[in-house]
Amino acid sequence: MRKGRAREARPFDEGRFQVGRTMYLAIDFGGTRTRAGWFSAELALLRRAEAPSQTEEPPEAVIARIIGLARSVVPTGEMPAAIGICGPGAQAYTGIILNARTLPGWERVPLAEPISAAFGGAPTFMENDANLAALAEYHFGAAQGCDPAVYLTVSTGIGGGAVIGGRLFTGWHGLAIEPGHIPFVMPDGRVLDLELLASGTAIGRLARERLAATDTPSTLRDLARVDGRAVGEAAQRGDALARALIEEAGRWLGLGLVTLAHLFNPQAIVLGGSVATLGDLILQPAREQLAAHLIDPAFNDPDLLRLAALGDDVCLTGAALHARARLQEARPAS
Amino acid sequence: MRKGRAREARPFDEGRFQVGRTMYLAIDFGGTRTRAGWFSAELALLRRAEAPSQTEEPPEAVIARIIGLARSVVPTGEMPAAIGICGPGAQAYTGIILNARTLPGWERVPLAEPISAAFGGAPTFMENDANLAALAEYHFGAAQGCDPAVYLTVSTGIGGGAVIGGRLFTGWHGLAIEPGHIPFVMPDGRVLDLELLASGTAIGRLARERLAATDTPSTLRDLARVDGRAVGEAAQRGDALARALIEEAGRWLGLGLVTLAHLFNPQAIVLGGSVATLGDLILQPAREQLAAHLIDPAFNDPDLLRLAALGDDVCLTGAALHARARLQEARPAS
Repeated sequence: MRKGRAREARPFDEGRFQVGRTMYLAIDFGGTRTRAGWFSAELALLRRAEAPSQTEEPPEAVIARIIGLARSVVPTGEMPAAIGICGPGAQAYTGIILNARTLPGWERVPLAEPISAAFGGAPTFMENDANLAALAEYHFGAAQGCDPAVYLTVSTGIGGGAVIGGRLFTGWHGLAIEPGHIPFVMPDGRVLDLELLASGTAIGRLARERLAATDTPSTLRDLARVDGRAVGEAAQRGDALARALIEEAGRWLGLGLVTLAHLFNPQAIVLGGSVATLGDLILQPAREQLAAHLIDPAFNDPDLLRLAALGDDVCLTGAALHARARLQEARPAS
Repeated sequence: MRKGRAREARPFDEGRFQVGRTMYLAIDFGGTRTRAGWFSAELALLRRAEAPSQTEEPPEAVIARIIGLARSVVPTGEMPAAIGICGPGAQAYTGIILNARTLPGWERVPLAEPISAAFGGAPTFMENDANLAALAEYHFGAAQGCDPAVYLTVSTGIGGGAVIGGRLFTGWHGLAIEPGHIPFVMPDGRVLDLELLASGTAIGRLARERLAATDTPSTLRDLARVDGRAVGEAAQRGDALARALIEEAGRWLGLGLVTLAHLFNPQAIVLGGSVATLGDLILQPAREQLAAHLIDPAFNDPDLLRLAALGDDVCLTGAALHARARLQEARPAS
């Protein structure tokens, strides 16, 4: 089950950390950038730092730099009551980076444990980015007061999270809410998942295939590199081929939303990630699928779909919320 | 129909009852049969009665007969602390039968209210069959100790339910877990849902289409009426066309299970309903889809798929469990 959890490896020592106020350290370790934040008991972000992750370096060096960044936000003489880490990969909850696609070469690298050790063994809780974003949007963002709240991020990949009954829903092994892996059958019989049909990576790949297979004119033909971002920008400029590709992705996304609505009957589905920022170009075809394929209009509240409200610090905030929630679970009397 | 070992009613023993004990009345109002049960505080089924629903009669007559059947299980001088009703349709939780497909002509008929009134205004809680079956299988059946536990019934239609954190998960408006409405895109572009591809009704329809469109020999050609049951029986006899149809349904069912596993990361998925009793004929192709399309073996526990363990009284037991849980929520101090 949940082996390697820092909480279990290093029992909480009440006496060492209650010197002053209950404060939380949050770390968002992303493939590109790492952020650290120092949060009050009420989860106000008091101090913040950010640096490139430089994950091409050996893990030891990267982890040492994460710890240095985290130290820079902790005031002299203070210690965190708990640490929340946003880590990559569906199985981040183990505290170990297992094999995140964004971190090639990082296999079975413990992350929670050395960070906990650097802060006197403070209880440390790691979760993946989409789960923590769901928690943050539920408490402070677009899904406030909405239960169940489902979060869907459409970016390089597709991830998700959900809050059910006021708590982060993680499933049996912490793997719940992977909407990127909802399967669809293609006309040729292949089974492709939503991430292969509607993520930024998929949009870029489909564009390159379409450009190679057809003569359709497109401003994309003038570009050295055609990726999801380039297709999005071309669609916003009015390029017809790019628009058709984004619309197609939106239709697949919409079928994914139909599935989420029928299974979770959520009060809100929050859409985050760079692809969602394309707005109606991708959301209108998605909404049309919801209108066409939900069996009952009761599933389709006018406010069901919402754009994420929190910005770059969404995962940092989620990590702080997670640290506080898990610490309170561990010490219900306090 | 749900086959399997029926929960045996214990012989009625007047001496066991004391006035003022907390007892529960459960009613399972199905399209074909209605069942009533009298349950102890510990949810032992003490008295039980059953009769045809005769839903072709006017709703008033049917409801009067339901109340009569329920009265027959309540010992003289006793009153239920709460009443649980298993009602048809996804929106049964409203206590009103809105427009269940199995009850044509029953539109917006209040059911919970007249039943409550017949038993001195006892608190009455109605839910749909698949939700209550999920609750019963979690507490007493194939999913004991499993959390999350997902229940999927494949019969005339496809329904579902889930227990999350020990509680029945119903979503925002009580509509959660409708796996029959997971959409798939057909090669011709039409969007069909799982119920239209893998239910007993779908299997019968697809068989009639296949028989009309091809010359493939099949024992089904000798039958006056080809429905899902007939196809299942022919498949069990070894009919090649029938087997191919069941296998096809199994592959779609498997893709539905892939979706449920990726979204809920359940500890158990319990399969009920007449189609599931076809066993490996339909489950083997479903298992192959799970093996092929789950992104991580951690989702696919060897004990993930289980056949329903409770028999015909599964919904009656679920209704009693639901009445007790909802009453305890409403009166936490007692």
